[in-house]
Amino acid sequence: MVRPTTRSVLALCAAGAVAATGVAVATNYDYGRDRSDALRAEISSRTPKNVILFVGDGMGDSEVTLARYYAKGAAGRLNMDRLPFRGSSIHYVLSPGPGPDYAPNYVGDSAPTATAWSTGKRTVDGRLSQGPSSALNVPGSNDGYRTFMEIARDRGKATGNVSTAEITDATPAGPSAHISQRACQGPNDARKTCPSETKESGGLGSIAEQQADQGFDVVLGGGRARYAQPLLAGGTTTVFDYARAKGYTQQPATADDLANVTSLRNGKVLGLFTNSNMTTEYAPLQARSKTWQDANPGFDPQKDAGSPETSCVQTNRPANEPSLSMMTSKAIQLLSRNRNGFVLQVEGASIDKRDHAADVCGQIGETVAMDDALGVALAYQRRNPDTLIIVTADHAHTSQMINAGQVPASLAAFATLKTVDGAPIRVMYGTATEEGASHGHTGAQVPVWAIGPQAANIQGTIDQTDIFGVLNGLRPARGHGWWTRPAYGK
Amino acid sequence: MVRPTTRSVLALCAAGAVAATGVAVATNYDYGRDRSDALRAEISSRTPKNVILFVGDGMGDSEVTLARYYAKGAAGRLNMDRLPFRGSSIHYVLSPGPGPDYAPNYVGDSAPTATAWSTGKRTVDGRLSQGPSSALNVPGSNDGYRTFMEIARDRGKATGNVSTAEITDATPAGPSAHISQRACQGPNDARKTCPSETKESGGLGSIAEQQADQGFDVVLGGGRARYAQPLLAGGTTTVFDYARAKGYTQQPATADDLANVTSLRNGKVLGLFTNSNMTTEYAPLQARSKTWQDANPGFDPQKDAGSPETSCVQTNRPANEPSLSMMTSKAIQLLSRNRNGFVLQVEGASIDKRDHAADVCGQIGETVAMDDALGVALAYQRRNPDTLIIVTADHAHTSQMINAGQVPASLAAFATLKTVDGAPIRVMYGTATEEGASHGHTGAQVPVWAIGPQAANIQGTIDQTDIFGVLNGLRPARGHGWWTRPAYGK
Repeated sequence: MVRPTTRSVLALCAAGAVAATGVAVATNYDYGRDRSDALRAEISSRTPKNVILFVGDGMGDSEVTLARYYAKGAAGRLNMDRLPFRGSSIHYVLSPGPGPDYAPNYVGDSAPTATAWSTGKRTVDGRLSQGPSSALNVPGSNDGYRTFMEIARDRGKATGNVSTAEITDATPAGPSAHISQRACQGPNDARKTCPSETKESGGLGSIAEQQADQGFDVVLGGGRARYAQPLLAGGTTTVFDYARAKGYTQQPATADDLANVTSLRNGKVLGLFTNSNMTTEYAPLQARSKTWQDANPGFDPQKDAGSPETSCVQTNRPANEPSLSMMTSKAIQLLSRNRNGFVLQVEGASIDKRDHAADVCGQIGETVAMDDALGVALAYQRRNPDTLIIVTADHAHTSQMINAGQVPASLAAFATLKTVDGAPIRVMYGTATEEGASHGHTGAQVPVWAIGPQAANIQGTIDQTDIFGVLNGLRPARGHGWWTRPAYGK
Repeated sequence: MVRPTTRSVLALCAAGAVAATGVAVATNYDYGRDRSDALRAEISSRTPKNVILFVGDGMGDSEVTLARYYAKGAAGRLNMDRLPFRGSSIHYVLSPGPGPDYAPNYVGDSAPTATAWSTGKRTVDGRLSQGPSSALNVPGSNDGYRTFMEIARDRGKATGNVSTAEITDATPAGPSAHISQRACQGPNDARKTCPSETKESGGLGSIAEQQADQGFDVVLGGGRARYAQPLLAGGTTTVFDYARAKGYTQQPATADDLANVTSLRNGKVLGLFTNSNMTTEYAPLQARSKTWQDANPGFDPQKDAGSPETSCVQTNRPANEPSLSMMTSKAIQLLSRNRNGFVLQVEGASIDKRDHAADVCGQIGETVAMDDALGVALAYQRRNPDTLIIVTADHAHTSQMINAGQVPASLAAFATLKTVDGAPIRVMYGTATEEGASHGHTGAQVPVWAIGPQAANIQGTIDQTDIFGVLNGLRPARGHGWWTRPAYGK
């Protein structure tokens, strides 16, 4: 784990990354003026030609607010904040059972939540775009779990899947694989965990193999080690080889390689840039509990867990790994050549992973990085207003912003940072079962924003499965109004 | 504290309050249909005649989701969810300083946050609708901190202020008082804490006295003890007497008294129904830490801290206290007779107070109670579409929904309840400094919903001070669109 040194922090401060500025008593942007007409002008019921879905993994309202305050300041705004429509997404999943109805599980993992928007249907923890039946591989268990990316491909649209995680991780696997266990990422993994679902057993194979079979045009992220696994136990042909045979003849492995890919005419693109997850933009800064701090007298809050003078070191990613913005930009460049339009999913994966780890800088940096990638897409959308952009999260997460003078009890980890306002912000992580253990997901409704044709459909309180319909393009209304829609109440 | 007994819980279950039902794999309300036109039809740039502001104190997205799942189920919806427009409100306040700019304090209390929407300006913790200068009572310290309710009154609108807290508590005091310390609720309190701001000292007096001077037409809530304090030290004339002389000739003290108030022709209405805060709708259910549970072998999770079979006892409020719905209904009934329209603030106060106390049932019941009161207002709004309703929170709070099988470390309190779906939900409180201490506010952006004329202005990411402008009625747009508004970025 790379730790920021006092010197590196001070160098950053000297470079002007942290400016001590105050805020005014009133900062209203356009005090007292109505903007009803401006919102009305953003509503369009046309069918979008292109759709870009951004998923901030674990990016609840708390994570968004932390990133905004840290990187943009109290009066600053993220790109997410620019989107005209905003709703909340309810993301419960199912508990295992005999069906046909299932008890809800209010706090799920990234596999069933990815399934929800990918297929319009819910499933159980760990499962990807496959039904919740407790019997695995029963006939028809994938019935009706067709994904928006499969639908778009079959409609002749170009398709792309981008993530900072292993590309075989749950969120990018949602639209690209059907399997009972998210752990079955490569052939070796599947032989161990899903033996009845391997290709040898007559199944669809591991997530990596299924992704090669899907043939989506641009696939970018981490996870080389999964694709380097042999198709057959003890064999030498890897998933990389298999994918090449399936048309993925462009396989960039560095940022420079990716920059040199200029067209899909030379083949589909499978660009995996790290063996596991990609490196975070900001260096880690580990939140620690009061108990841990007291038990570690050598603990230096300046560099180890934050103090009101600590900033994040923002230069952690090696130059040979592309940023999420670079991957997003390249994907749009390649996919937008298609006359029928394109569908692209972009995941900021390590917001979740660093939240689990109580790594406050890692989490904030990944949120900002996804927001920067959104900025790339928004620039494209302004020039191509037939593009729908949706931004959401799969589930909420642990991190909370507490009063900068407050010390949470006992084993809750916390760290304090200095924001661009020059003011202290304290972040707390309290859901782990013990010091150093992984913190957990939380169940609060998560934000969903949108701009472009049919963007108004994410408005209000929606179910995560409703996003599926919007991704596919909606049919005309049946004429009922906001109030008379049928499903409110039980 | 009233504790639910096993018998009372079982009686409730038998009465059908908890029905074990499952959820379907897909519950989309109107699968695949566009509702752009329905949203467009909700946009109106007319100036609202009537404005009703609901404030759920401490009601962040986590608190909303908990109440929805518990009381309505995974596929159920609250009245809040029916509102067509939804934004997020950023609610930082100011740290003390010399000015003119101030360092932001990202996690404030209810006084400066109430000041933000009441006056359109920020201030420091503890202060109400008064400037942040570190010198108290400097000339002009209230300049520019005119409240929306004062503005409405002076425009000839009827005005109302309703809360389940003491009516002199910070949130109802926001639009009705200007004072340096929220603790100065009655004359005795002010003599102790704000001696330079009493009427004897030439100041505006305590919050209760200022409320009598303001002359808002309908004032309903708790806090009799503050109004029973003597105007002068050792005197016998109380604030009740003073208010009567100021025109508050109707002073109901019970739900029956309130029902018998039928018109403002007989005088303004000051209805205070409890000495302190009003009683919560649901009986308390105290979340407890694993450490506490282990140290208390007599601990019965069934009745003391929740288990997967525990439900909330929903019959805690005595019949002589009106519910928030009853107070809201009566306020609307009385105020709506005014030809110039009315402005009404309604607070669900004890969402926050029970969140501080890790009382999971108390918190949920108060959220549902405020949502029920919103239902009363929505019914009025449907018949009177020139009414703008805004629903928001002042700040976020501690409670988090975690996986029902997870035991958070050490001193974090948790409790598990059975929802109307028949499924377990686990709620955790982890920000207190020690077992049993008060949990703290959190800084996540909070929801804001609206319906009615100019409701579209709460859309997207807004500053809490922006709500002030919407409450007053906005002037026509200056013609720029959503994208070109000036204040994004720093």
